[in-house]
Amino acid sequence: MASAMASGDDQAMAGNAPTGFRVELGERDPLVLDAGQKLGPFTMAYQTYGALNADKSNAVLVCHALTGDQFVLGKNPYTGRDGWWPLMIGPGLPLDTDRYFIICSNVLGGCMGTVGPKELDPKTGKPYGLGFPFITIADMVRAQAMLVDHLGIDQLFCVIGGSMGGMQVLEWAVSYPERVFTAVPIACATYHSAQNIAFHEVGRQAIFADPDWRGGSYLAEDTKPRRGLAVARMAAHITYLSEAALHEKFGRRLQHREQLIYDLEDLFAVESYLRHQGEAFVERFDANSYVYITRAMDYFDLAARHGGKLAEVFKDTKTRFCVISFTGDWLYPTSDNREIVRALNAVAANVSFVEVKSDKGHDAFLLNEPVMFDTLRGFLNGAARRRGLIR
Amino acid sequence: MASAMASGDDQAMAGNAPTGFRVELGERDPLVLDAGQKLGPFTMAYQTYGALNADKSNAVLVCHALTGDQFVLGKNPYTGRDGWWPLMIGPGLPLDTDRYFIICSNVLGGCMGTVGPKELDPKTGKPYGLGFPFITIADMVRAQAMLVDHLGIDQLFCVIGGSMGGMQVLEWAVSYPERVFTAVPIACATYHSAQNIAFHEVGRQAIFADPDWRGGSYLAEDTKPRRGLAVARMAAHITYLSEAALHEKFGRRLQHREQLIYDLEDLFAVESYLRHQGEAFVERFDANSYVYITRAMDYFDLAARHGGKLAEVFKDTKTRFCVISFTGDWLYPTSDNREIVRALNAVAANVSFVEVKSDKGHDAFLLNEPVMFDTLRGFLNGAARRRGLIR
Repeated sequence: MASAMASGDDQAMAGNAPTGFRVELGERDPLVLDAGQKLGPFTMAYQTYGALNADKSNAVLVCHALTGDQFVLGKNPYTGRDGWWPLMIGPGLPLDTDRYFIICSNVLGGCMGTVGPKELDPKTGKPYGLGFPFITIADMVRAQAMLVDHLGIDQLFCVIGGSMGGMQVLEWAVSYPERVFTAVPIACATYHSAQNIAFHEVGRQAIFADPDWRGGSYLAEDTKPRRGLAVARMAAHITYLSEAALHEKFGRRLQHREQLIYDLEDLFAVESYLRHQGEAFVERFDANSYVYITRAMDYFDLAARHGGKLAEVFKDTKTRFCVISFTGDWLYPTSDNREIVRALNAVAANVSFVEVKSDKGHDAFLLNEPVMFDTLRGFLNGAARRRGLIR
Repeated sequence: MASAMASGDDQAMAGNAPTGFRVELGERDPLVLDAGQKLGPFTMAYQTYGALNADKSNAVLVCHALTGDQFVLGKNPYTGRDGWWPLMIGPGLPLDTDRYFIICSNVLGGCMGTVGPKELDPKTGKPYGLGFPFITIADMVRAQAMLVDHLGIDQLFCVIGGSMGGMQVLEWAVSYPERVFTAVPIACATYHSAQNIAFHEVGRQAIFADPDWRGGSYLAEDTKPRRGLAVARMAAHITYLSEAALHEKFGRRLQHREQLIYDLEDLFAVESYLRHQGEAFVERFDANSYVYITRAMDYFDLAARHGGKLAEVFKDTKTRFCVISFTGDWLYPTSDNREIVRALNAVAANVSFVEVKSDKGHDAFLLNEPVMFDTLRGFLNGAARRRGLIR
């Protein structure tokens, strides 16, 4: 399905290399980053699902979260694991691949094919490491816009994403209002809070504390800050779940034991689970990408970026919004999501808002949440009729 | 004030050594730990404030939290910083040193003079390190009971503490009901939750990940896992504050800067604050003590320990309880504290419960919370009348 829609010069990977599309962007007009540097040409890796219609009006851009990637469906060739949004995207699902042309690209700074700190710096022939320029959510979005240009699409029917994906959705709606017919920011906020910055900083410090980080140049020295990155992931992972989810899933259950032991082995099931999460993560993710992308999230402040007043950033928007939050999400609680709704209401924008009752925590947007699916299906169907995608 | 009350054989430190009392306990009857080992003789370091009355009925045992110590008032000779509960304890304060004899001992496994992993193992002449036996909250409490015996006190007028201190209070009330006239557990729970175990495990893994931890034997090798312990402290510190406190205190304020910078320096004030917290902590705390004490907290489960049913652990108690929680505490939320109250109500125990409205997070119990002070003053005055301490 995807191959038919990828433009002719995009490289599909062959042999042992990961499947997927890659395109060189910014050769003539480089991407000018918020930090001032110019980037170009640079590689963008992406996947598509479904078919683009004749008037190119059915494209949906899916924006992934901090540790996500472009593989929303099917096997991720890097990890061998299933794509990350199989309940949302597919035939007959809310993002119906029989109706929509789904695009998902690996973010700028990522480690699944798009240019990032683990890729080779053409100037040195070595991995960028800390030589990679610092990036922002707006930079990620500008790079995505270049990909959308490249695919010949003027307006996206929908830009959708949760968590950091939701930040990109908001940035899209504000930076390119004419190009976004509908916007679905899920479980996110208009700015990254002090607590969220704090958790990110703990993760970064865990990475920096690992001597195998080597000041960021570990790849050139053929090593990896495995333990530091695992600790970062463990800390972050707690914030993705709710206290209730942890209690229900693990409580004080012991791991393969009948009674308390008095040593340093993993005693409680929740400890084993976290250790496993940490270890699995270092197999699939680059530590410097983690540093750069968390920093990009920390920079995010929609109002500060666009003149300082949140009420004005969405002024005159024609985009239809659907904002979704989860009761059990303490990383981006409903109060944060409601600020988006308030700002949209203040300019009389077209906005639906649903707080989904869920004990699953922040990660609920990735899980089986029927109310979220029903909400999106209704919202997207209504918008699709308006856009002439359903008769 | 203190010196008059310490028993004759206790050693007051002189010269450059830290001021305070130390006593050798368990020489004849060693402390039998939950893990099975026997400990004795062992050193217990403690402080006292105020004077013990003639019938020894005015003693108050203060139990400190994870990273606390016996220096509740005045300068801590180890750190040069002020004691940790100056608003609670002193002349005219809720724990009035003109009326009560205040005892606070460094917990078993600690690093301020009581035996713990940083002290010398008499068998090897080297610091215990991981050779130190694993300990529980009940072990800490048994050691305290030996100190109270040593001081010749049968019944404590009050056992009080917040966080891990509150766990000790609960254990005291259950293990030695006849010896506790009043019990004040603050901001705690009857068991350590999955989320709290998870955060502790992140801290421990951060320490283990530091190559300078050297499998626990860093002191013998004249080094310290500074970076790992700092990361552990940073992660924990976030959990001690509320999202609201972080927002109010730091928000997205930049540290000594006018605008965003694009590098890895501490950019936001909250980052600088956390880095400082981490760095300051490693100066005063031993990494292995952190490992052992967090583990002791994780083991804590009052019901499991005492027959499995929480409703029965307080059966026939005559102790008067005052339970205090804080609205902004997400580490030991009010719901956790309320379980204590429910269990006490189920056996018709004498219990007061106050949820203090506070945005300061878990650390509120250490801070200026007038409602907490007023509540305690009223509760303790009433009990003091019953006990004949006020006429």
